[in-house]
Amino acid sequence: MRIELQEELDLIREMLVSTAEAVRSAIGVATTALLSADRTAAESVITGDVQINDLCWRIEDRVQATTARQAPVATDLRVMFAALHVAADLERMGDLAKHVARTALRAHPEPAVPAELAPLFGQMAGGADRMAAKLIRVLSEPDLARAAELDRDDNVVDRLHRDLLARLLEPGWRYGAEAAIDAALLGRFYERYADHAVNAGRRVTFLVSGAAVVG
Amino acid sequence: MRIELQEELDLIREMLVSTAEAVRSAIGVATTALLSADRTAAESVITGDVQINDLCWRIEDRVQATTARQAPVATDLRVMFAALHVAADLERMGDLAKHVARTALRAHPEPAVPAELAPLFGQMAGGADRMAAKLIRVLSEPDLARAAELDRDDNVVDRLHRDLLARLLEPGWRYGAEAAIDAALLGRFYERYADHAVNAGRRVTFLVSGAAVVG
Repeated sequence: MRIELQEELDLIREMLVSTAEAVRSAIGVATTALLSADRTAAESVITGDVQINDLCWRIEDRVQATTARQAPVATDLRVMFAALHVAADLERMGDLAKHVARTALRAHPEPAVPAELAPLFGQMAGGADRMAAKLIRVLSEPDLARAAELDRDDNVVDRLHRDLLARLLEPGWRYGAEAAIDAALLGRFYERYADHAVNAGRRVTFLVSGAAVVG
Repeated sequence: MRIELQEELDLIREMLVSTAEAVRSAIGVATTALLSADRTAAESVITGDVQINDLCWRIEDRVQATTARQAPVATDLRVMFAALHVAADLERMGDLAKHVARTALRAHPEPAVPAELAPLFGQMAGGADRMAAKLIRVLSEPDLARAAELDRDDNVVDRLHRDLLARLLEPGWRYGAEAAIDAALLGRFYERYADHAVNAGRRVTFLVSGAAVVG
């Protein structure tokens, strides 16, 4: 039974890694949709989110079934609970990628953000992608140092987000209120995506270090 | 042991209800802060969010301890998992109330939203408050009909949110990009607060009906 539980834990971990990979891909494709006004890319993210939700649901189901069958205790039980939280963060990250894609689709065939903001969004997206990549690594193999890097990466995304808001409020802003609102909300989607990557990473850290994580 | 588990489940339910009450109060006080440019109210929401986080953390801790000690199965185990999800939704609702309060504080002593938008925000806040009140009732006593009402209430908040965005995009908007961005983000905070109330209500519904809930 001990071996069986370990196999279940490994399987749940693999499911989390696969889902994190899907969620990383989603924000990448959504960014392409946003910066290239690419309708096909936007639609594929929106369609793909159904699959991400399904993956998250299956993780939850598996965690519940394993907990019921194997009655894990101590660390094994904490891993189960952490897996649920990470799945919830991943589901939300998928939603946020979908929100980016929807914004791109609504503006299509026009770009949703003015060309002069594209580099800033490219940087935010790059930060989000790096964080998703680190989350995948941390889920594959818990690593406190790498999980801690997520906090620093998040600070970079937060700073870019503040830079973005400052740009929108410059007296020279000439794209009107709609573009300002879209850009502010898009900025928030990337910033929240990064926050969820941090939360998910902290759950893994928590399993290793035992420190509290509600923030 | 059976009775002991029932007592634990009742205690966890009471903790969820108390936390939902705190989260309902938080959005109410945050709205006062927003619409009356009330600094003390804003600060109390920001301070109070630490307590909400602490309540959520204690629920999670209790769920883990009870699951470890009592190894619940079937419906009892599902109640445990649902409690975790509801606690996470409540924690997020508290955060969103804090975001509203922070926006009010940043604008203080000026109001964060133009007077002409105050009635619309009042309506969104009223919707959010009604939903929080229903969530408290549903948590106290599962009730499929009342949980279903949360979906309808959410549609009302979503409609108000769309009305708000339309107002910000009217050609006659004369408060500039900053006020438009603040109002758009504030609208999103209320809309997300309502979404989390729906999610939490669905978790309770799920326990009664067995239907899937990942959305």
